[in-house]
Amino acid sequence: MSGDLHLDFTSDNSSGAHPAILQAIVDANNGPAAAYGADQWTRRAELALADIFEREVEVFLVATGTAANALALSAVTDPWGAVLCHEFAHIAADECGAPEFFSAGAKLVGLPGRAGKITPAALDDALALMPRGVVKQVQPQALALSQATECGALYTQAEITALAEIAHAAGMAVHMDGARFANALVALGLTPAEISWKAGVDVLSFGATKNGAFACEAVIFFDTDRAKDFAYRRKRGGHTLSKGRLLGAQMEAYLRDGLWLDLAGKANVRAAELEAGLAALPGVRFPWRREINEVFAIVPTAMRQRMLAAGARFHPWTPRALEPRERPSADEVFIRLIPSFATSPEAVVALAAAARG
Amino acid sequence: MSGDLHLDFTSDNSSGAHPAILQAIVDANNGPAAAYGADQWTRRAELALADIFEREVEVFLVATGTAANALALSAVTDPWGAVLCHEFAHIAADECGAPEFFSAGAKLVGLPGRAGKITPAALDDALALMPRGVVKQVQPQALALSQATECGALYTQAEITALAEIAHAAGMAVHMDGARFANALVALGLTPAEISWKAGVDVLSFGATKNGAFACEAVIFFDTDRAKDFAYRRKRGGHTLSKGRLLGAQMEAYLRDGLWLDLAGKANVRAAELEAGLAALPGVRFPWRREINEVFAIVPTAMRQRMLAAGARFHPWTPRALEPRERPSADEVFIRLIPSFATSPEAVVALAAAARG
Amino acid sequence: MSGDLHLDFTSDNSSGAHPAILQAIVDANNGPAAAYGADQWTRRAELALADIFEREVEVFLVATGTAANALALSAVTDPWGAVLCHEFAHIAADECGAPEFFSAGAKLVGLPGRAGKITPAALDDALALMPRGVVKQVQPQALALSQATECGALYTQAEITALAEIAHAAGMAVHMDGARFANALVALGLTPAEISWKAGVDVLSFGATKNGAFACEAVIFFDTDRAKDFAYRRKRGGHTLSKGRLLGAQMEAYLRDGLWLDLAGKANVRAAELEAGLAALPGVRFPWRREINEVFAIVPTAMRQRMLAAGARFHPWTPRALEPRERPSADEVFIRLIPSFATSPEAVVALAAAARG
Amino acid sequence: MSGDLHLDFTSDNSSGAHPAILQAIVDANNGPAAAYGADQWTRRAELALADIFEREVEVFLVATGTAANALALSAVTDPWGAVLCHEFAHIAADECGAPEFFSAGAKLVGLPGRAGKITPAALDDALALMPRGVVKQVQPQALALSQATECGALYTQAEITALAEIAHAAGMAVHMDGARFANALVALGLTPAEISWKAGVDVLSFGATKNGAFACEAVIFFDTDRAKDFAYRRKRGGHTLSKGRLLGAQMEAYLRDGLWLDLAGKANVRAAELEAGLAALPGVRFPWRREINEVFAIVPTAMRQRMLAAGARFHPWTPRALEPRERPSADEVFIRLIPSFATSPEAVVALAAAARG
Repeated sequence: MSGDLHLDFTSDNSSGAHPAILQAIVDANNGPAAAYGADQWTRRAELALADIFEREVEVFLVATGTAANALALSAVTDPWGAVLCHEFAHIAADECGAPEFFSAGAKLVGLPGRAGKITPAALDDALALMPRGVVKQVQPQALALSQATECGALYTQAEITALAEIAHAAGMAVHMDGARFANALVALGLTPAEISWKAGVDVLSFGATKNGAFACEAVIFFDTDRAKDFAYRRKRGGHTLSKGRLLGAQMEAYLRDGLWLDLAGKANVRAAELEAGLAALPGVRFPWRREINEVFAIVPTAMRQRMLAAGARFHPWTPRALEPRERPSADEVFIRLIPSFATSPEAVVALAAAARG
Repeated sequence: MSGDLHLDFTSDNSSGAHPAILQAIVDANNGPAAAYGADQWTRRAELALADIFEREVEVFLVATGTAANALALSAVTDPWGAVLCHEFAHIAADECGAPEFFSAGAKLVGLPGRAGKITPAALDDALALMPRGVVKQVQPQALALSQATECGALYTQAEITALAEIAHAAGMAVHMDGARFANALVALGLTPAEISWKAGVDVLSFGATKNGAFACEAVIFFDTDRAKDFAYRRKRGGHTLSKGRLLGAQMEAYLRDGLWLDLAGKANVRAAELEAGLAALPGVRFPWRREINEVFAIVPTAMRQRMLAAGARFHPWTPRALEPRERPSADEVFIRLIPSFATSPEAVVALAAAARG
Repeated sequence: MSGDLHLDFTSDNSSGAHPAILQAIVDANNGPAAAYGADQWTRRAELALADIFEREVEVFLVATGTAANALALSAVTDPWGAVLCHEFAHIAADECGAPEFFSAGAKLVGLPGRAGKITPAALDDALALMPRGVVKQVQPQALALSQATECGALYTQAEITALAEIAHAAGMAVHMDGARFANALVALGLTPAEISWKAGVDVLSFGATKNGAFACEAVIFFDTDRAKDFAYRRKRGGHTLSKGRLLGAQMEAYLRDGLWLDLAGKANVRAAELEAGLAALPGVRFPWRREINEVFAIVPTAMRQRMLAAGARFHPWTPRALEPRERPSADEVFIRLIPSFATSPEAVVALAAAARG
Repeated sequence: MSGDLHLDFTSDNSSGAHPAILQAIVDANNGPAAAYGADQWTRRAELALADIFEREVEVFLVATGTAANALALSAVTDPWGAVLCHEFAHIAADECGAPEFFSAGAKLVGLPGRAGKITPAALDDALALMPRGVVKQVQPQALALSQATECGALYTQAEITALAEIAHAAGMAVHMDGARFANALVALGLTPAEISWKAGVDVLSFGATKNGAFACEAVIFFDTDRAKDFAYRRKRGGHTLSKGRLLGAQMEAYLRDGLWLDLAGKANVRAAELEAGLAALPGVRFPWRREINEVFAIVPTAMRQRMLAAGARFHPWTPRALEPRERPSADEVFIRLIPSFATSPEAVVALAAAARG
């Protein structure tokens, strides 16, 4: 630790909540309120999301991203269905089988692709191996895209559209895991509608926790018919908070006056600064282009030691995500660095300085 | 509404959080913290619970009571197992099948009993109909007691002990739904240990939300062997908060300096005052003795109208919980009134005044 | 055992297959056939069922009654749904939670009723306690009737119609467990259509195993829209036999030239003879009228001993099925006697003689 | 069709039952028998399996291979567990998600490998990516080997032992899908014990259906502790036949006097003859060595047409199972030919003749 600086780059969920969101929780605390999400804060958050997405939506707030993803996928996938996703997608690799649990046993089929992105060719290939109506095989029912991906990569609107067209033509629904939706949006410079329903997304896990909320995500149905039983799914999953205003207040504050975009923008800028700082150092390689607030870098082992010695915290990343020829050599390591909305410019400078040694 | 008074008696979950707990959330917000429950607040809350229960425990914090109950039951019940509980228990009637979901299809067997309480005789009767090892029948594996019950009734330590002995002799685990554990504890004047593990409880859903937290419950295993896979269950249920300090901070503050007991005591006293106020009025009947912060009353329909007209809010209750001879006549209604820790004495006075007309 | 006589009255599933059905299996064995139910025997059985039921149907053959019931119910009940059935129904009491398993956790709600029969009043009462759209409660989605009931009682066409009308008005599907459908049909003297779809049944478990097949039941959808995903359900339940002709041949032979009705008629007659034989004996009481091939009797304990001593085999039955005032005294026992299609008149005579002593 | 010859090479499940097994069913049909598998035929089959495997075993008969596999895997895998298997394994590709269903959502992780075989290196690689105790990831709990594989390849005893050692060291159970166990056994020239428990297999799906039974498989537990709840699993899966002697009689006859080995030997010889016949023809390639009764061949499209024109029936096989460089050219096709115990030498000659043209 350099003075009071927090050199925590492990994840954007290591930060607390943004002060404005915290204040919204405090402000929402007074007096009685209707329970189970029938409160005014939740209602206003729903209206704000409809406004931001420029259309009617069905919104369900939950406290975790895993709940949002697993519940959303269960609403669009039968137990004998398959969810096609990237092989390294969070839903496939990091949720301890939650999608399988909530869908009563659907299968996640992992597709290959650079930097966590699925290509139309990979999707076509996978679908070619999954004939419809062959009873011995699970049926493709959902395409799950992560925006941004686990590798911090982005889909353009055209890319989403192309994938969604294939999925829809095959009778599948399109889910988007938007745990870092705001970071993606800001980086792409598009509207929320453009990278979601206008590009063919049917249901979105709209994350707020990593970008300034304490514990709040929204499952947003653009295909509102899919939402008709969702209240039962959420309740029986134990995800309907009795004091629902805790969620509503967070989401309302998150969206108010563009706070969510400001915060995502800050986190992205910090990552850009960090990337620039590391790029100037000998021996640092980036396997793919940074697009949001995640920096993936192959660095000399000694550099990693210097950063750790300075009090920095961050995670190694799996070389499996790289082509064999790109993988770290014996004296290199592959690391992931994530600044959040709360990361200070000084922390980034300090980290780069520590790396330089 | 009488001036600024909140005459909300719908449930103790219509209140927000207690200021001290809210402040703990605010205080916990600074700086980075380890994610997924590895934070210091959660650790301290775990230690506080071990201290309060006077023994080693395994603790898992979650945000809802339904999650706590369903996850806890899934840890002690196979899919072909049965959970024996009161027919009106929250887990059976009000959780939309969450226990069945988390246990992959276990059966909840509802037992009869006055005021939501199971008797040893009823438990014996039910077990007599469930022979062990008969493959065509689900096997009794868990006894679930609610302390207090859905009707606000309490089990004495001796009663719990007697039920737990029957359950354990039959090879079953004992679960306690303690959504209002604090209210029960204060009313009984016993220690936490005495009405839980010392009486034979193996796993407890320890509620805080209804008694001053915003969204926090603890699953507490006294039979710690049962806890070994619980972290996976919680994660795959989407109940592992990434910013786990939100839960840890609530629970730590809830337990600090006996706050939880103070709050429960206040709520109980408000209920006693309310009961006394109503008891003085002609035409009011109480089907069973009030023990915690819930008042169940059969009142004249006109009285109910006066209370509503004064801005009071409360729920009707099902006459099914009553013997036929006790049920409301055509010009009576059966109602439930729940003051919380946040209910003011003035609100109780105002409600009684409105009832009197 | 009296000579070569088999005094087995434990269940109609203790008999083997009828010779004609056995021969059909033998005949179907020659040469290759399409696997997984695409064979000609299965196809002919499907056509025969459509003919017998006088309408288009969707048919799925399986090897067990539990599979038929649980799969059928899963096709008409969401995980957050409730199946309303008699409290002693086979699906609730004797299938080890199979309906809960196949439906991913739906709840079976047991209704009271004489001799295993649900009344419109009991159904109305149950539905009154299950408000639609209240998210904390499971939603009534299926009514499951047993024809005949576990107590051998029958629903008239009018009774089924009345119950189905209530169910349909509440948005529920109607399932019929017809493990002894043929026995019921013959006893009622109606057509298959009259006691199924014409009375409002949407999906039928059409039993053959107890009435002469070796292992064969049909799930028959009259509401064919409900069948669209059933092939996947059956496959993933492991219930799609690779050599499907084993099932097809049984069902085809069972239905050919009215064999199924002849066999059911024989079993029913044997039961009538047995009832008459016992009725002539002092100390024998029948709690309800015999209607099919099941005789329920309260007999002196000494009589039961004489029957057992003569080599007879049969099961006790639970006094829980009786009103308290009807229950056996200390020197009586409640027993169930089931002749099958294969039970000889001599065996019935021998049993009655043994009872008489 | 060449005269009366059946040129059906689609699968060994397109044959009926062997006459001796059919006769055993007929013989078992007389008189009453205890239901649900408590019959004498089943008991004798269990003893025969213990004898054949040279040790105490727990045996459960079921009617389908999918049931055997899915039930067996569910007994050794938690819902948050992973089953490591070959990516083309029947359990992963051809059972419509049955393992996921029966295990309540476990994940099947597909490993690469030539001809359907898993190598120790591939297993090590997969395990390296699945750290134990990391709560966000499913935990490896079962290794599932197919003997023979979907490509007809065999594991030697040493290979099984090596894989099982890795699995056991990682705390996993070892399952073997032995749908064609007899064919494998005969080809390997080992004892049943040697390629199962002596090599480290804990639970075996012992197939009989493809090799002469009508519908009969045994789940055999060598680790008998794992079997303690299996009767409930089978019952609630609807896989406990009421007239259980249908299964017992088949298995008993299958094992009597080495019938099962004779039949497997015949099928294997037919395949060898077929392979030899095709190998003599220009343009035929075999991607891997034939080992049991399955012949995989890349043949000229015109040859395939000639075989079809002669009445032969067989399936194409997915080129995905081949290295890109091996895949069929534009005028070739990849086919699978499976003779069964019932395939005549003349049929093989006729097929080869048709192929030659």
